[in-house]
Amino acid sequence: MGRKYVIGLDFGTESGRAVLVAVDNGEEVATAVQNYQDGVIDEALPGSGKKLEPDWALQNPADYLHVIEQVIPKVLQTSGVSGDDVIGIGTDFTACTMMPIDKEGTPLCMEPEFADRPHAWIKLWKHHAAQPEADRINEVARERNEDFLARYGGKISSEWFFPKALQILDEDPEIYHAADRLIEAGDWIVLQLCGEEKRNACVAGYKAIWDEGYPSPEFFKALHPAFENVVADKMTEDIYPAGVKAGGLLPHIAKKTGLTPGTAVATGGVDAHVAVPAATVTEEGKMVMIMGTSVCHMVCCKDKKRIEGLCGVVKDGILPGYYGYEAGQTAVGDIFAWFVNNCVPGWVAEEAAKAGTNVHGYLSKQAARLQPGESGVLALDWWNGNRSVLVDADLTGLMVGMTLTTTPAEMYRAVLESTAFGTYKIIKELEEGGVPIAEVYACGGLPGKNPLLMQIFADVTNREFMVSASDQTVALGSAMWGAVAAGSEAGGYDNVTQAATRMARLKDDSFRPDPAAHAQYERLFAEYERLHDLFGRGGDDVMKTLKEIKLTVRGSNG
Amino acid sequence: MGRKYVIGLDFGTESGRAVLVAVDNGEEVATAVQNYQDGVIDEALPGSGKKLEPDWALQNPADYLHVIEQVIPKVLQTSGVSGDDVIGIGTDFTACTMMPIDKEGTPLCMEPEFADRPHAWIKLWKHHAAQPEADRINEVARERNEDFLARYGGKISSEWFFPKALQILDEDPEIYHAADRLIEAGDWIVLQLCGEEKRNACVAGYKAIWDEGYPSPEFFKALHPAFENVVADKMTEDIYPAGVKAGGLLPHIAKKTGLTPGTAVATGGVDAHVAVPAATVTEEGKMVMIMGTSVCHMVCCKDKKRIEGLCGVVKDGILPGYYGYEAGQTAVGDIFAWFVNNCVPGWVAEEAAKAGTNVHGYLSKQAARLQPGESGVLALDWWNGNRSVLVDADLTGLMVGMTLTTTPAEMYRAVLESTAFGTYKIIKELEEGGVPIAEVYACGGLPGKNPLLMQIFADVTNREFMVSASDQTVALGSAMWGAVAAGSEAGGYDNVTQAATRMARLKDDSFRPDPAAHAQYERLFAEYERLHDLFGRGGDDVMKTLKEIKLTVRGSNG
Repeated sequence: MGRKYVIGLDFGTESGRAVLVAVDNGEEVATAVQNYQDGVIDEALPGSGKKLEPDWALQNPADYLHVIEQVIPKVLQTSGVSGDDVIGIGTDFTACTMMPIDKEGTPLCMEPEFADRPHAWIKLWKHHAAQPEADRINEVARERNEDFLARYGGKISSEWFFPKALQILDEDPEIYHAADRLIEAGDWIVLQLCGEEKRNACVAGYKAIWDEGYPSPEFFKALHPAFENVVADKMTEDIYPAGVKAGGLLPHIAKKTGLTPGTAVATGGVDAHVAVPAATVTEEGKMVMIMGTSVCHMVCCKDKKRIEGLCGVVKDGILPGYYGYEAGQTAVGDIFAWFVNNCVPGWVAEEAAKAGTNVHGYLSKQAARLQPGESGVLALDWWNGNRSVLVDADLTGLMVGMTLTTTPAEMYRAVLESTAFGTYKIIKELEEGGVPIAEVYACGGLPGKNPLLMQIFADVTNREFMVSASDQTVALGSAMWGAVAAGSEAGGYDNVTQAATRMARLKDDSFRPDPAAHAQYERLFAEYERLHDLFGRGGDDVMKTLKEIKLTVRGSNG
Repeated sequence: MGRKYVIGLDFGTESGRAVLVAVDNGEEVATAVQNYQDGVIDEALPGSGKKLEPDWALQNPADYLHVIEQVIPKVLQTSGVSGDDVIGIGTDFTACTMMPIDKEGTPLCMEPEFADRPHAWIKLWKHHAAQPEADRINEVARERNEDFLARYGGKISSEWFFPKALQILDEDPEIYHAADRLIEAGDWIVLQLCGEEKRNACVAGYKAIWDEGYPSPEFFKALHPAFENVVADKMTEDIYPAGVKAGGLLPHIAKKTGLTPGTAVATGGVDAHVAVPAATVTEEGKMVMIMGTSVCHMVCCKDKKRIEGLCGVVKDGILPGYYGYEAGQTAVGDIFAWFVNNCVPGWVAEEAAKAGTNVHGYLSKQAARLQPGESGVLALDWWNGNRSVLVDADLTGLMVGMTLTTTPAEMYRAVLESTAFGTYKIIKELEEGGVPIAEVYACGGLPGKNPLLMQIFADVTNREFMVSASDQTVALGSAMWGAVAAGSEAGGYDNVTQAATRMARLKDDSFRPDPAAHAQYERLFAEYERLHDLFGRGGDDVMKTLKEIKLTVRGSNG
């Protein structure tokens, strides 16, 4: 038996990618990326040109299918690997990205009669037009004292499944009733690949209020009389953990891609979550952080705990047999990018060019010379609100301590530190709630780009930060779940721990906390934490008042 | 009798200037500026090269005399005006800028035996090395419940007269004892011009704790046994209001400058204060603001009131017959300059260049399009501490409300607005204390440069802002006091109201408050004021804690 391979398919916001991975050692043999032709549809529908309201964000399912037809043949061709040697396929998707489909699984937007109806299309994760429905869900849930609220930090996001489903019913009941089912794109893609609808626990738990069962029909009825049986009518109660084989690859897809019919297809996953085993983590006590424009924190625990302000706690949601805890910071790399684009003077760019580096590189070098606390500047990392602990989108950024001699590098460092304080607050919240976190495993774009940031995170949190060796941890993770779905008899693995041991690797260098720096950071964190509570828990409502005033002024302008 | 002229001599931090002004209508006929050769001496003494400690700032009296010999002949020559037609000279000086002199009025630093002794030189206003002495003065004054503290916002600044005098005694008692007198440079220059020591009420009151009398010998003794008779031994109790004729020009100065011996020389003044009549203001209810790197607020009132956190209340301190109230903001133009140098991205400079303007111009244009409150961003204007109301140098800048879409123009506008809120707070404090302010008269560098700033000040404070027509209001004001010192018999004026009516002018355009904008600003100011009190009055000490941490870290770095 020759060398065996698995394919990880990673469906992002703008593009989809395939990575072809060797099962024996996790070698990433080939990668291919395909941009979505229609990308994020936020102005007008393709074809009909029908205009969309503000805050809408849709996608075209044809783009996903096009990805499959393009990237799988490409990785086979580039690598010279035969389709016969590919034993499994795993997928991950943005979430909640959902759509109405008919009995055959065809999205309603692909049917000519519905093509000009916005609600027939796929609602992308960042479709924010279901806020009124989210508000209603939260209000009704609070009135009814629904238990589930506590699992999601007290609030259901407008980005999640039921607000989006309810928006369809509210605004285009015909589409709602015409839909045979409402389904996550991550489950739909598995259905397309293998013809089986095996919905995964990860999206069900984190995005659709599933906890070994959905909210009651009474709850849904209280939202809208016609919504009472949304689960029974439009969904399914059968939910599967990650790594289960959903089915075998359908012949027509096999033909188009060069793979073998019947190849194992794993249940789908959420992009962030499949990265966990790809960062070598398959047990409790180890937090995985995907660090990019935003940060997602994931940690597993055998026990179910109630923690304030998490994004969700889901059984089998990350790893089978564990409760998966997810938290997040809405903006991290995004704040750094904002800072560099809006707050860094031209002379820094000139100095950076002279030194043969970019602005981030130059500022990092200058900022690295500062001791913790030396600048006297402190920030709250809420430029895009606070997702975890406070769960409040209306909070905003704050910076304090500037003098006439404060430098761009000092402010840059304060901004980096603020995001580390945000993560430290989440770690403390989890540990105080009974979920221990001894080490952190980082992946995503930031760890490789900004070593100063990583050292600050280690120093602030007083924890060692390991870094995943792969540049595409998410796609690798999907491939690993494909290897588990294939099983050892087919040349894969029987469980994710085996797969991680063989296929996942860390970089040699980790970031170890410096005790002296941490001691200094504890003093700064005390200030951060007090301001966090002052501005985040109603002690001083300046941020909300300013937002209210801003909305009033902008509203009256136009 | 032909046209008569007066000369205003304005001694600044880096240079001195003369302006030759026609008495009949205030026409500024000629101006000349001379830089001080030794400028601000803050590293080593001229001549001996003796190194100075940090925070020292000295000047060389020879530079002041050189100014007189250069600029007076120059304005006569440029204008073609004869020295015989110059009827009066007025002067203003930075303060407190003080020195030890001998019996003949010669500064000790000009005597060879003392030339290498730092304490023999002139301590410039921004000499900050007398902080330990200021701390001692404040401590002893509090212990003894000295009444005068309340007049100065509860704190004597290290920049003022007695801390500097006490530092001489503390650190070089031989110089202290060798000094026949300790004198303000503004009074010393009058002594040089006319041979008369007529100390002026303005510096005595605002810088030397004078209130129709100095603090008691017991108080001074409590500071240092040898300091008991500092007033009797080294100063004088004779204090004169502005506009009094101190004496006639000495023949040797007349010879060097081309003026007539005996020409009226007015008592000296502080730079900011002489601007008041030059901005047309000679009565109560009208605040004059000198707006530049910092802002100085001056207003007169017939009554003596106690106001929290003023820089000083002095009888005859600004205008004869009135109590003069002074307040200030430590940094205004300085904050804008810091912002532009440290926080404005390169692309703004490029856009500005394309639009044929500079960064301030470009940002002003963008910021002018915003409604009050539209940005959602709010700042506290404490980049250089808070001088008035809170009187706390350890406060620092704060900005709140930033999101990922916040623009440089929005932050720029928030910074401008923060300084207007600072002024509004001072105006409200004065009015609540019984000192009415109906209108504001602005002069200095900022009003001409930044119309958006002026409109924001008018809108925030809900008061009309008039702008002085002269670009050199301070020098014009000195010249006007020279005309008053000369008196009507010599072709001048009998009082400052007459002088202001004839010699001072406003620009045609003023800045009138927009009621709608003011209403919106009241909402924002409520937020500013609450944060002002929260961070400025001990509700939350984050600024001080960050400064403490910063000092600890910098100290331990060596």
